[in-house]
Amino acid sequence: MPDFQSRRHLFSIPDGVVYLDGNSLGPLPNAASKRIANTVEKEWGIDLIRAWNTAGWIDWPANLGDRIAPLVGATPGTVTVGDTLSIRIFQVLAAALRMRPDRNVILTDSGNFPSDIYMADGLARLVNDGHRIEAVEPEAVADRLVDDVAVLMLTHVDYRTGRMHDMAELTGLAHEVGALTIWDLAHSAGAVPVDLDGAKADFAAGCTYKYLNGGPGSPGFVYVRPDHIETVEPALSGWLGHADPFAFELDYTPAKGRDRMRIGTPSVIALAALDAALDAWSDVDMRDVRQRSIELTQLFIDEMEARIPEAKLVSPRAAEARGSHVSFSHPEGYALMQALIARGVIGDFRAPDMMRFGIAPLYNTKDDIRAAVTALKEILESGEWDQDRFKTRAAVT
Amino acid sequence: MPDFQSRRHLFSIPDGVVYLDGNSLGPLPNAASKRIANTVEKEWGIDLIRAWNTAGWIDWPANLGDRIAPLVGATPGTVTVGDTLSIRIFQVLAAALRMRPDRNVILTDSGNFPSDIYMADGLARLVNDGHRIEAVEPEAVADRLVDDVAVLMLTHVDYRTGRMHDMAELTGLAHEVGALTIWDLAHSAGAVPVDLDGAKADFAAGCTYKYLNGGPGSPGFVYVRPDHIETVEPALSGWLGHADPFAFELDYTPAKGRDRMRIGTPSVIALAALDAALDAWSDVDMRDVRQRSIELTQLFIDEMEARIPEAKLVSPRAAEARGSHVSFSHPEGYALMQALIARGVIGDFRAPDMMRFGIAPLYNTKDDIRAAVTALKEILESGEWDQDRFKTRAAVT
Repeated sequence: MPDFQSRRHLFSIPDGVVYLDGNSLGPLPNAASKRIANTVEKEWGIDLIRAWNTAGWIDWPANLGDRIAPLVGATPGTVTVGDTLSIRIFQVLAAALRMRPDRNVILTDSGNFPSDIYMADGLARLVNDGHRIEAVEPEAVADRLVDDVAVLMLTHVDYRTGRMHDMAELTGLAHEVGALTIWDLAHSAGAVPVDLDGAKADFAAGCTYKYLNGGPGSPGFVYVRPDHIETVEPALSGWLGHADPFAFELDYTPAKGRDRMRIGTPSVIALAALDAALDAWSDVDMRDVRQRSIELTQLFIDEMEARIPEAKLVSPRAAEARGSHVSFSHPEGYALMQALIARGVIGDFRAPDMMRFGIAPLYNTKDDIRAAVTALKEILESGEWDQDRFKTRAAVT
Repeated sequence: MPDFQSRRHLFSIPDGVVYLDGNSLGPLPNAASKRIANTVEKEWGIDLIRAWNTAGWIDWPANLGDRIAPLVGATPGTVTVGDTLSIRIFQVLAAALRMRPDRNVILTDSGNFPSDIYMADGLARLVNDGHRIEAVEPEAVADRLVDDVAVLMLTHVDYRTGRMHDMAELTGLAHEVGALTIWDLAHSAGAVPVDLDGAKADFAAGCTYKYLNGGPGSPGFVYVRPDHIETVEPALSGWLGHADPFAFELDYTPAKGRDRMRIGTPSVIALAALDAALDAWSDVDMRDVRQRSIELTQLFIDEMEARIPEAKLVSPRAAEARGSHVSFSHPEGYALMQALIARGVIGDFRAPDMMRFGIAPLYNTKDDIRAAVTALKEILESGEWDQDRFKTRAAVT
């Protein structure tokens, strides 16, 4: 069993902080500040508008897509970067519905991230053609896959529980009944091995500010299966997805390949930060990442259950059924998490009672795990969580 | 006539550069590097996920909207920031069409920025309810405003010629026939006085990387008229536009006010850059900006026509009919512009033959104008433009 080579030295994690929220916002990669400053001061500041050519800004969304591709099992040329995950979900769902004009069910599950369902709802109202969104329980998805389903749209790893769907199996079942699939990889990219090509997933979308550490609100990405890529019709038909954007024609002609999934002008500074963040993923084998993730999540579960039995495991007990975060419920979960954060042990909270701990294989350690459980144990024993300042809900939880 | 107080000292413009492309990408504000570094190194690096609360990231789109509002004649609380201009156009057009269900014409003009028309086309195909986009000549808009028009969607200042529509007049005419209006302010915000409230414009959208100097691909903004803002239905219904995003409900309930126009998570680093850029607009009176703009654009036209009569003015001759950029056509416009850029006089080119010069009242000077015309004159006289390296088209023009 090869030792996983921790890349913690590539990140800026403040002294005294145990960071277990990289599934919400990854930490600052050391390479980012300089990369951003270069884009701001040299490319923007000195090259000005010329930097679209001299620095190659125009190609960055595709180049970054090709850097993300191997992390999600995608062929080069199938991923592009920009906009937000919500916009990307809308974009691929609109494309998929057009490919199944005679079907009207968008199948999802109750564990999908709400924004995906909201965006689908907004799209269905726009299209106004009788589509309905069915959100079944995660375990009921396979049974609900019958031939009225146009699109199966799922988040691969549940944002609350960490439960992971079997992408290949569900994609196969969807295809058997003629449905298309959309996979949200928000909690998967950089967390678990993903094999989009192998699973024959039709579309996928993800964000880059969680395990990929691209920075707050860093751009989304989108994947289109190679055999759809020259035929998919962009509904969000922005100028940078045009075959010849700088011809400024009045009629829209989609670009070749994944470039047609581009929309408007992306934040170049945000792309620079992401580019630096992706350096930390060079030569990473996702199988090693997975092994390390299981080792750490298992240690966390074992320690929690041994020392804090009153917290209940919400995540799947079987390692193969979960992603890289682990959640425990506790009636005082909100205040406990605030008290943890006050001690520098940073996880987060999801209503109604869930303490969520993101375990990022790239930089978290066994010491992080043990320190977090010890801190929670002490907080419970001391009763220090039972203070108004820990019970007052913040704007962002 | 009060002297305009140049704010050139607030910007980093390289020595030897005459920058006349701020209508494409504004220059680096001196305040931006430090503001960005603070967001990256302190807020992201040290506060990590907590910065959504401690640094108030969650409120930045609204706060920045309120900083832009006075520059476009908007009441506080009507503007929010995020996503791209193309997405914002789609968003407000979808909302507007829903408010006029019995009409099917989207009226625009041939001077609209193509992406707006592409996005409208994508939307019309999605909605698939018989909408058609009519792009008439700019001068024909008023006559085409009859009672089948659902929405009049125009770019206020033409991206090529600088021709400026009369927003109040056309909005009034649109309202007389029951149509709604959408104004694209890409070449207006920070360039000319805009009075959205006064004109009773229904919706507007803009970008912040041109005259507002927010950086490459900095986010778009959107305006909703106060009396629409509690009833407008978001079609791009992302989680940050939800009434209670952190409740993670499966059903979408729009937030109160302009916050419902939020979609997904915006790049916080891009917002930090924009925040710094908006410092340069503190206490600026747009009437002074306009006076300065007219002074400089008129000087440019006079100098060009006196010294380079073979270049033909494409922009309106009447100052009140144009924005803050000026375009001249010349059969060798592309090569001439490349030769100008090689000399450090940076404008840009729009096919087929248009040299475009953005004149930013905040930092351009009379010396810039005279230097640019002198350089072009010398380039023409020396024939130095007639080289392959100046004729080869770049990826971005």
